[in-house]
Amino acid sequence: MTATFGFRVAARDGRARLGEMTTPHGLVQTPAFMPVGTQGAVKAMLPRDLIEVGAEVILANTYHLYLRPGDERIARHGGLHRFIGWDRPILTDSGGYQAFSLGERRTIDERGITFQSHLDGSTHLLTPEKATDIQANLGSDIAMVLDECLGYPATRDEAAASMERTLRWEARCRRRFVELQERNGQREADHGRPSGQRTTTDDYPLPAASCPSTMLGAALSAPKGCQLPAVCVTNPGQAQFGIVQGGTHIDIRVASAQATVELGFEAYAVGGLSVGEPPDLMYETVGETTPILPDDRPRYLMGTGTPVDLVEAVALGVDLFDCVMPTRNARNGQLFTSEGRLNIKNAQYSDDPRPADPRCGCYACRHFSRAYLRHLFVAGEITAATLNTLHNLTFYLDTMKRIREAIAFSSLEQLRHDYRRVFSRRSVNS
Amino acid sequence: MTATFGFRVAARDGRARLGEMTTPHGLVQTPAFMPVGTQGAVKAMLPRDLIEVGAEVILANTYHLYLRPGDERIARHGGLHRFIGWDRPILTDSGGYQAFSLGERRTIDERGITFQSHLDGSTHLLTPEKATDIQANLGSDIAMVLDECLGYPATRDEAAASMERTLRWEARCRRRFVELQERNGQREADHGRPSGQRTTTDDYPLPAASCPSTMLGAALSAPKGCQLPAVCVTNPGQAQFGIVQGGTHIDIRVASAQATVELGFEAYAVGGLSVGEPPDLMYETVGETTPILPDDRPRYLMGTGTPVDLVEAVALGVDLFDCVMPTRNARNGQLFTSEGRLNIKNAQYSDDPRPADPRCGCYACRHFSRAYLRHLFVAGEITAATLNTLHNLTFYLDTMKRIREAIAFSSLEQLRHDYRRVFSRRSVNS
Repeated sequence: MTATFGFRVAARDGRARLGEMTTPHGLVQTPAFMPVGTQGAVKAMLPRDLIEVGAEVILANTYHLYLRPGDERIARHGGLHRFIGWDRPILTDSGGYQAFSLGERRTIDERGITFQSHLDGSTHLLTPEKATDIQANLGSDIAMVLDECLGYPATRDEAAASMERTLRWEARCRRRFVELQERNGQREADHGRPSGQRTTTDDYPLPAASCPSTMLGAALSAPKGCQLPAVCVTNPGQAQFGIVQGGTHIDIRVASAQATVELGFEAYAVGGLSVGEPPDLMYETVGETTPILPDDRPRYLMGTGTPVDLVEAVALGVDLFDCVMPTRNARNGQLFTSEGRLNIKNAQYSDDPRPADPRCGCYACRHFSRAYLRHLFVAGEITAATLNTLHNLTFYLDTMKRIREAIAFSSLEQLRHDYRRVFSRRSVNS
Repeated sequence: MTATFGFRVAARDGRARLGEMTTPHGLVQTPAFMPVGTQGAVKAMLPRDLIEVGAEVILANTYHLYLRPGDERIARHGGLHRFIGWDRPILTDSGGYQAFSLGERRTIDERGITFQSHLDGSTHLLTPEKATDIQANLGSDIAMVLDECLGYPATRDEAAASMERTLRWEARCRRRFVELQERNGQREADHGRPSGQRTTTDDYPLPAASCPSTMLGAALSAPKGCQLPAVCVTNPGQAQFGIVQGGTHIDIRVASAQATVELGFEAYAVGGLSVGEPPDLMYETVGETTPILPDDRPRYLMGTGTPVDLVEAVALGVDLFDCVMPTRNARNGQLFTSEGRLNIKNAQYSDDPRPADPRCGCYACRHFSRAYLRHLFVAGEITAATLNTLHNLTFYLDTMKRIREAIAFSSLEQLRHDYRRVFSRRSVNS
């Protein structure tokens, strides 16, 4: 559990890297895709489904979990892994992007982001320190710094000002992160044991002497030594990633990358893309940014993307991805297949006895026809969401596996070509 | 597949029977509970989940499947088992109860039930013959006769008239059922093979020479020898159950039971209960009816019930049950536990680290706390429906297992006492 964060490149194909990321909750083979579990659950999936489709790491949203059920509550339950029953790695975002997306319900100043909750309208101030504290309570394996997100398009001046604010926020996040780690190290020394020791849901009630677990016994009171309701470091091995901003202005991106690396994080992300810019402009921006980021650390392209985006960005040196596309599109009836996108609600599938993707080995494709999947979708059955999500995540995770194999066999160029060809069509022809 | 329907009593405890029901799709240990898969899917469950919780037979609704996706479409796909990916036994109701429930949107006369579709307002006439044909297309292992359902309370005259109409309808259903069986037997002899040969989803495209499978290749045209779009017997081993009606008027029930047995079905159901009458009146009615039904055939109490209902009715000689309660209540946040009913949305569970039912071994109880289940429910996550349904069906299927064990060990009286005690409370105290 107290294993520190690590990364090792095992093979290369051009700028693409095949690697292995170490976290307190185990290894992640990279390039990796992280299914999105916004509110502490990947929609329509159980943890065992995620393991089945091959997910090695998931993403959870700090904004949502902070508002409900609350990061302090999650800390009392021993952290997010234990609360949601997922014992593999978790990355949490900083909440900045969601708060940013609230539009008129948020204002940004040097202190941080002030926003109204989408749940009850209550006002909250998300500072860099607060974002760091919340993620310490959650105990994710990878925490993200609070960044200012910028819409597209943005002028040079806007991009520069925003990037600089992000840098100042990143520095505050890192300072807070180091403070928490040091304070926790001191507490461990005082208590003679790690504070966030890994436990399972099976061993309730929680041992009365442990921290943070005692909080459960003591309900909402803050137990001695844990300083709740402030912050409880539930995962002492947590890493913190910096984020490169700067819109699509290459020189600002480059400056951001250099300064962020200077601040010193366990690894680095490219943020503020996939916000409406043309794909080629995104690829160009990524391609100019990754060379500045340390070669011995994973690189995470936030919120991206389509299957083609994944292959393209890997070829530019990216190692980690997250996107709601496979899960959200599944619930809307759009399936990703080896023949392109397939809209299962189309009447043409009413009598189609074939599986969604004849080349897919997922549970949905092994057992059900397009005709049945269409019926479930049209009938509004919950099972439609489950089967479609199982399939789409399998397609995404299989894509990552294909990518890793292609790097190992130096055939990524062929894979890029194949994915471009298949997904240039708007949907499956049949 | 052509195995005929059978039933064998293995042990008794008072009037309760431990048995084994044989169907073309395998054995069912009785007393058994059938989860309800209204539209060809038990809501929020995958077939593998149903197997995991111990379901040996499920129920599907003829009314819903007839309207969407259509029984002829399902026949073209080789029948309901194949279409929905469930190769264990299926019982289909006749559609009568759903049509009856449409209230002002249906009229009943001697021909049958004329109703407006809840989907598009289109008008349909469900006759006894039509209900039999639809179920032949679906190919369930157990088909039900079309009965007239009666609300509660009903006068003696209403109950008597309705019961007599049900008898006339039952006779027409049986006649039609026998005709279809004979016609199918003749076709098998002509073709030298059973028409509804069992297939799996894996071997698409379907072999061009087979019937009914060729229909898939030929799309909507009716292939020679199968007489679609009329009727295709997709399960030659299908059984047909008669239904006893008569409201809560014991003498009318008795007359109905005698006359239905006279008509001669593979087995018999008690219908028209759990429609608002007090539980004790239901038990009394069941208790007066079961002795008249043949001892060597299973007895099915339709649409019932609570956990206490199951135990009580088994003690009165009932062998089969179905009810939406475990699945519907799960989606509303009500869990059945060994300590009684538990409303997971209650704030008291916000920080409760215990599983929903500490004595339950289901996936939900093994991995998640009440606090997490509550969070998922409050957050509107699909996963809440899945986990709650997994749990409730486990509780129901475990109850049936406990019942069967209690009969084997002659301790059903103790189980009745226990269930009455636990479920007399409105909800879990804690």
